[in-house]
Amino acid sequence: MADGGCAAINTKIEEGEGGYILEDVPHLTDYLPSLLTYPNPLQDNPAYSVVKQYFVDVDDTVAQKVLFCFVSQIVVHKNGDRGIHFRRAGPRQKVYFKSDEVHACIVTCGGLCPGLNTVIREIVCGLHYMYGVSKIIGIDGGYMGFYSKNTVTLTPKVVNDIHKRGGTVLGTSRGGHDTSKIVDSIQDRGINQVYVIGGDGTQKGAAVIYEEVRRRGLKVSVAGIPKTIDNDIPVIDRSFGFDTAVEEAQRAINAAHVEAESTENGIGVVKLMGRYSGFIAMYATLASRDVDCCLIPESPFFLEGKGGLFQFIRKRLKENGHMVIVIAEGAGQDLLTESMQSMGQQDASGNKQLQDVGFWISHRIKDHFAKEHNMAITLKYIDPTYMIRAIPGNASDNVYCTLLAQSAVHGAMAGYTGFTCGPVNGRHSYIPFNRITEKQNKVVITDRMWARLLSSTNQPSFL
Amino acid sequence: MADGGCAAINTKIEEGEGGYILEDVPHLTDYLPSLLTYPNPLQDNPAYSVVKQYFVDVDDTVAQKVLFCFVSQIVVHKNGDRGIHFRRAGPRQKVYFKSDEVHACIVTCGGLCPGLNTVIREIVCGLHYMYGVSKIIGIDGGYMGFYSKNTVTLTPKVVNDIHKRGGTVLGTSRGGHDTSKIVDSIQDRGINQVYVIGGDGTQKGAAVIYEEVRRRGLKVSVAGIPKTIDNDIPVIDRSFGFDTAVEEAQRAINAAHVEAESTENGIGVVKLMGRYSGFIAMYATLASRDVDCCLIPESPFFLEGKGGLFQFIRKRLKENGHMVIVIAEGAGQDLLTESMQSMGQQDASGNKQLQDVGFWISHRIKDHFAKEHNMAITLKYIDPTYMIRAIPGNASDNVYCTLLAQSAVHGAMAGYTGFTCGPVNGRHSYIPFNRITEKQNKVVITDRMWARLLSSTNQPSFL
Amino acid sequence: MADGGCAAINTKIEEGEGGYILEDVPHLTDYLPSLLTYPNPLQDNPAYSVVKQYFVDVDDTVAQKVLFCFVSQIVVHKNGDRGIHFRRAGPRQKVYFKSDEVHACIVTCGGLCPGLNTVIREIVCGLHYMYGVSKIIGIDGGYMGFYSKNTVTLTPKVVNDIHKRGGTVLGTSRGGHDTSKIVDSIQDRGINQVYVIGGDGTQKGAAVIYEEVRRRGLKVSVAGIPKTIDNDIPVIDRSFGFDTAVEEAQRAINAAHVEAESTENGIGVVKLMGRYSGFIAMYATLASRDVDCCLIPESPFFLEGKGGLFQFIRKRLKENGHMVIVIAEGAGQDLLTESMQSMGQQDASGNKQLQDVGFWISHRIKDHFAKEHNMAITLKYIDPTYMIRAIPGNASDNVYCTLLAQSAVHGAMAGYTGFTCGPVNGRHSYIPFNRITEKQNKVVITDRMWARLLSSTNQPSFL
Amino acid sequence: MADGGCAAINTKIEEGEGGYILEDVPHLTDYLPSLLTYPNPLQDNPAYSVVKQYFVDVDDTVAQKVLFCFVSQIVVHKNGDRGIHFRRAGPRQKVYFKSDEVHACIVTCGGLCPGLNTVIREIVCGLHYMYGVSKIIGIDGGYMGFYSKNTVTLTPKVVNDIHKRGGTVLGTSRGGHDTSKIVDSIQDRGINQVYVIGGDGTQKGAAVIYEEVRRRGLKVSVAGIPKTIDNDIPVIDRSFGFDTAVEEAQRAINAAHVEAESTENGIGVVKLMGRYSGFIAMYATLASRDVDCCLIPESPFFLEGKGGLFQFIRKRLKENGHMVIVIAEGAGQDLLTESMQSMGQQDASGNKQLQDVGFWISHRIKDHFAKEHNMAITLKYIDPTYMIRAIPGNASDNVYCTLLAQSAVHGAMAGYTGFTCGPVNGRHSYIPFNRITEKQNKVVITDRMWARLLSSTNQPSFL
Repeated sequence: MADGGCAAINTKIEEGEGGYILEDVPHLTDYLPSLLTYPNPLQDNPAYSVVKQYFVDVDDTVAQKVLFCFVSQIVVHKNGDRGIHFRRAGPRQKVYFKSDEVHACIVTCGGLCPGLNTVIREIVCGLHYMYGVSKIIGIDGGYMGFYSKNTVTLTPKVVNDIHKRGGTVLGTSRGGHDTSKIVDSIQDRGINQVYVIGGDGTQKGAAVIYEEVRRRGLKVSVAGIPKTIDNDIPVIDRSFGFDTAVEEAQRAINAAHVEAESTENGIGVVKLMGRYSGFIAMYATLASRDVDCCLIPESPFFLEGKGGLFQFIRKRLKENGHMVIVIAEGAGQDLLTESMQSMGQQDASGNKQLQDVGFWISHRIKDHFAKEHNMAITLKYIDPTYMIRAIPGNASDNVYCTLLAQSAVHGAMAGYTGFTCGPVNGRHSYIPFNRITEKQNKVVITDRMWARLLSSTNQPSFL
Repeated sequence: MADGGCAAINTKIEEGEGGYILEDVPHLTDYLPSLLTYPNPLQDNPAYSVVKQYFVDVDDTVAQKVLFCFVSQIVVHKNGDRGIHFRRAGPRQKVYFKSDEVHACIVTCGGLCPGLNTVIREIVCGLHYMYGVSKIIGIDGGYMGFYSKNTVTLTPKVVNDIHKRGGTVLGTSRGGHDTSKIVDSIQDRGINQVYVIGGDGTQKGAAVIYEEVRRRGLKVSVAGIPKTIDNDIPVIDRSFGFDTAVEEAQRAINAAHVEAESTENGIGVVKLMGRYSGFIAMYATLASRDVDCCLIPESPFFLEGKGGLFQFIRKRLKENGHMVIVIAEGAGQDLLTESMQSMGQQDASGNKQLQDVGFWISHRIKDHFAKEHNMAITLKYIDPTYMIRAIPGNASDNVYCTLLAQSAVHGAMAGYTGFTCGPVNGRHSYIPFNRITEKQNKVVITDRMWARLLSSTNQPSFL
Repeated sequence: MADGGCAAINTKIEEGEGGYILEDVPHLTDYLPSLLTYPNPLQDNPAYSVVKQYFVDVDDTVAQKVLFCFVSQIVVHKNGDRGIHFRRAGPRQKVYFKSDEVHACIVTCGGLCPGLNTVIREIVCGLHYMYGVSKIIGIDGGYMGFYSKNTVTLTPKVVNDIHKRGGTVLGTSRGGHDTSKIVDSIQDRGINQVYVIGGDGTQKGAAVIYEEVRRRGLKVSVAGIPKTIDNDIPVIDRSFGFDTAVEEAQRAINAAHVEAESTENGIGVVKLMGRYSGFIAMYATLASRDVDCCLIPESPFFLEGKGGLFQFIRKRLKENGHMVIVIAEGAGQDLLTESMQSMGQQDASGNKQLQDVGFWISHRIKDHFAKEHNMAITLKYIDPTYMIRAIPGNASDNVYCTLLAQSAVHGAMAGYTGFTCGPVNGRHSYIPFNRITEKQNKVVITDRMWARLLSSTNQPSFL
Repeated sequence: MADGGCAAINTKIEEGEGGYILEDVPHLTDYLPSLLTYPNPLQDNPAYSVVKQYFVDVDDTVAQKVLFCFVSQIVVHKNGDRGIHFRRAGPRQKVYFKSDEVHACIVTCGGLCPGLNTVIREIVCGLHYMYGVSKIIGIDGGYMGFYSKNTVTLTPKVVNDIHKRGGTVLGTSRGGHDTSKIVDSIQDRGINQVYVIGGDGTQKGAAVIYEEVRRRGLKVSVAGIPKTIDNDIPVIDRSFGFDTAVEEAQRAINAAHVEAESTENGIGVVKLMGRYSGFIAMYATLASRDVDCCLIPESPFFLEGKGGLFQFIRKRLKENGHMVIVIAEGAGQDLLTESMQSMGQQDASGNKQLQDVGFWISHRIKDHFAKEHNMAITLKYIDPTYMIRAIPGNASDNVYCTLLAQSAVHGAMAGYTGFTCGPVNGRHSYIPFNRITEKQNKVVITDRMWARLLSSTNQPSFL
């Protein structure tokens, strides 16, 4: 096999008529063509007998929204293009693993996110109850656990209540990716299904594991479950934990509002998650109706002068006597960097703190109103990040995590590998790793949702 | 126009190539052809300047999911049909009302639903902040309030915090629809935009009001906002309050689970809303992971004998020592009717109580295990209905209610009338009344979501 | 020893000067006078070194409130009596068990109550961390578990998170008390400390177990922890779970209020726990400020005629348009019995339902306004009982449960037996069983707290 | 009047036999001896007719705990002293204001505290419903509102729902106390009852207002309601909002625990309120059972070396893999000051941040493990302060706030002035200002409650 690297391995483009493009995911038979298949044990499950056409047809694909229309919407114009499609997720008539042959492992990497334990629980329960699998282990503490820690035995009983707790029962860590040590560990332990739950970097790591597994010619399915509380994964409709995060953020916004309302010229500042994208800040603002200004990475802003933030604050305080500002952690990075540089290098610890954009902007606002204006303000800054991340998933996220986990399980059992999964345009799909790691999903500030936010807050557009 | 009644008035079918069908909504110019138009005041709103193509194109339509595919999914097969479309919701370049000419009223009818106050708030704020409207009144206590009560003045200040409270600040009632009295009241008060928030029957009432308004040749837009906590409205993606209801139902299921787990052969029974459709029961079950059996109106079941509920209860108690049953209020109506008849007419009050399916099934289970089996059970029945209905909308529903209210406002300002609105296939649309009142949305038990539930509970399919 | 029964065994009255009476609890040495003592292992615990006078003095006693004053208050008049005292709880310098000799068991009986798991956890952790005890078992499913079930091993690890869950991890049941089988089981297993968590009947059972243990001359300490969500245990300041129940009841009252407020002549009825005493109803009413009428067992009421409930409802609906009624489950039993009798015996199932006082009163109110008055009402009845019982303890109850469990552990280790414990007048004490089982704590309706309620609701006094 | 100042004015000491001391509060007749009295309108209230001896006897006093025993407990030794007493709160047979003569004002000062709105509501409702008072105004924004802002009219309708919201509807501020301007304003507006809700400094301010009012010979009652979320007010049993704060702190501790548990050597640090006293930290720790170390102002600690914090962290991480630290905001101030000094003055902004003890200790722990030890840690710092302060009171605090407000109203109506109120030894009392402002209530670390904490966390005593 003489292909030239990752892209070629990971991408299987198939074209059809009318501009139809299928971006397919790899399959074990791509490099192990003579694998045996078995009938899906689900066909003996009485639960499934009720469903017409339970198994997903080999030809079913799911269309990506973005190509259906002009402005990233699925509005259909009279002569629409057919566009990019992904392979549909779900159970297949034939599987490539016998139930008692499967030895699955699950690993969680990166920061906490509501719903993590639900995903773990549902992979275990899905493998066990749907496919009769009994050998499932958890890798302790992220990627590095593959080669530096003992594993944890996972059974339906062990995971029974974990979805009611926040965090991850498997532990997590950042980094620690050592491809050959990991694949050695997979090989040594006889693992043949690897479920990797994590963000951007983690999914890149899973892609590399898949490549090494393929290079070694192992019958090992590598399935990714994309995780980001920020909702910044492209292609998929939303990421798990996001809905819970928006809900929980309301507490902090309420508190900021109460604090601001209770004093003259009270300002409440709430920092929310979102390093590269402002989805949590935007939706939390739209849900709350108490926010006067929402600052996100995608929409640059400035502080001083006409049309700037300070002017807007002054105006709003004069009108209402108080205001609430929500700022995404990645907003205003250019201004922050500038501030850092102007302060010089003399103060490591102070600077480090200032790199928290919520602290920085609170500081700047206080400074501004202390020095330049005759307006005494009272500012309260709230950073609810860890209190949001650490809660369990809400009902909506729990349903979503269940479907996500089941998609991954169906895919691995069906012999797909090197894939990640998630809902595309409302349907669960298998997606090549590179499609979700090559860029970030961002708030489109020329889109109507952002306009709705602007009109609901009446904040300046800073343009 | 010599049309013969409701269907003809309400339905404007337009056909296009490739099987394209547009089911359009009426417009004031259908019967008042010489109305003047005005530029949309939003075009001066700086917030909107950032958005490319802010105004919705006159040709934009939204495709209904159901025609895209075989099994009510938007999976695209290589040669899909084009199918039924609706007019897209959103602001139009031209409006048919001047800001100071508008006199809007809002009325809420039927049972409580989380998010009602958010919809009221956002109609008021949308009219005020987006279109500069200042004459907005609330009708007190449902339809009958039009002719038997004083109205309430609504301003952004009055509605500022109402979305944090459950219920409806306007009050509500069932029935009370007297078309001519209502339209007299509309005419007498000079109202020219009528926003009607309510369920099935209420929307039918709004359709009749629209017809009478049209018959009288009044320049009055009648806009419906569909409300049902049960999610049983067809065409639209989901109804407001549903997500909150599923979330809040978790408390009752948790309590039932704790009660059941704490005694030997403990059974917890939870009745959830859903007269004709089992969506809340199904999603609450999928979200909880603690439910052993979910009974809904769409899936008939039986109690006695092989494959029946009693047998399943016995089996599950033997395995686990406890179980949780979720039952939708409309499930098992055939069995219940039969029970009533066999008891005769002698006992009015007892019977009335037995018509509560949760009480009835609890009674039957207790009776069965008391009489026929040698198994002492402890059953606890929980009916959380009013505790669920009465809470405020959660973050997700609040965002949804905001978009719904804004769609209605944009539609009425643009001169559309006799329409209801809601997201179709992810996009907000204007939908003819008859399309949402002619039938109910139901759980498709031959569809995969119900199969997922069956496989997660491992309950019998009762077939 | 020729003692004449329970009272004599259980009661050790000691009198002092100035009317001082000590109602002491039994001690193992009462019938095993030659037991060895050991130094309390806590004296080597560095944590305790900081505390002045850590160990409780042998003479320390706690005064019962009731004798200090005229109207059950601790207000001191200039020449107060000295009155009844109990032995103070807490660690003693000498203990009667060696750490590795202790074999403790814990049993929970009766209905659920928030905090049960915290008490279990803290007995385990208290024995383990304070006294180095490692043999602790749980009896499964109440008293009957002693002779019909396997036991559960309890360690700090097993109980680590249980206080965050509602219910009891040990399971519970009513009845099943068979004294000789239970004491046989205690003897056979070599158990020498028995911790019994339960209500009135359960504590009576514990008294009988203590007597049989004493009769057999066993070195076994029997310690009771009184449990009642209703707060109806006399002598002690409050019972665990009560504070949580009052807090959680607010949800139901809020829902009833929202439902009532949203319709014309809306009435919300909430039934709360309290078979013999109305403490939960009274405090939930005082905390809520939304309740118009609170009905409790201690305060008889009547429905018809001048000064009756119906008249008050009519008046309040006229004034406010809606109202909320809170009724304790044991209120109005005389009226209910009368209703039952007048209906005759023909209808078993209906009658059973009517025995629910909340359903009964709702029925009567609806009937009344349907038949006799020209006032259409809408009544919503909420029974949150199981949703309240099944939640975990709140912070305040968790602290309280911790102290309670530690008191019991200190007492048993110090050789006391046949005692129950709880705070008396703010101080934890050891109390003879009979003092808490011989009568119930009730709301004193001639006391000021009930007057405060009456003045806050302005309801009639029904006198 | 030749008295020498505040102490003499504020303190009315009366001595009785047996060491009985009554620290009485001033009365209007102290300087206006010929005031008329009126029968208390409550005597016509049917609600009160049920209560035996409703009115408080003129001789009733309440004993302070501290003098009853050796170690600040009410344990009674056989020959106890009679000690310090306060005047009992409650309605008096005679009042010194006619209902239509009263013109009351309410002011809130200082930081937010759960329950503030409940106190405001209940003063208004108490005056209105119990005493028929209709002229009640709110002072906007703290003391300075007396002379720089418009007032707010307060009626039962206006305050009806405010207890369900956090913050204070009246607004608050720090400082702004200008005695003569305030008393001028009181005089100009004809106010004759002043209710002052606030902390230490605010109560001192109220004392000065009382003195000036007395100096001018005005018939104005000045009543204080002590407010401190920290529970650091001496004499009274607890302060309002404290119970709510301890409850809400559990969320932050849970989040810290989840974060810590999910990573290797994870440390969660939570800063809680408590500038001079560690009550919130102590009770939140006791309630949570997840905390490994609790640091409070009353118990000095050190970081380095044997027996220090770093050593303990290292040990606990080795044992459990994670840990949670709760630190009161006023803990370790000596260490912090030292750190500041050693860093010099060059860095204003950084230093300011470091003055946050939670940030400082997090920084020190990270530094220590980065530099000196071969142990990679992950530390997450949570500061939930504003999220705790801004919530509404829980049920327990709402009941308490109601009693507190009613005590103040009864006191003012009865002509008492220059007093603050609160429960002493379980009974509501009127207390001279100086007794609650002259020192702070602190955790007694030689007392048993702190020992219980030490034994539950097993943290070092740092002695």
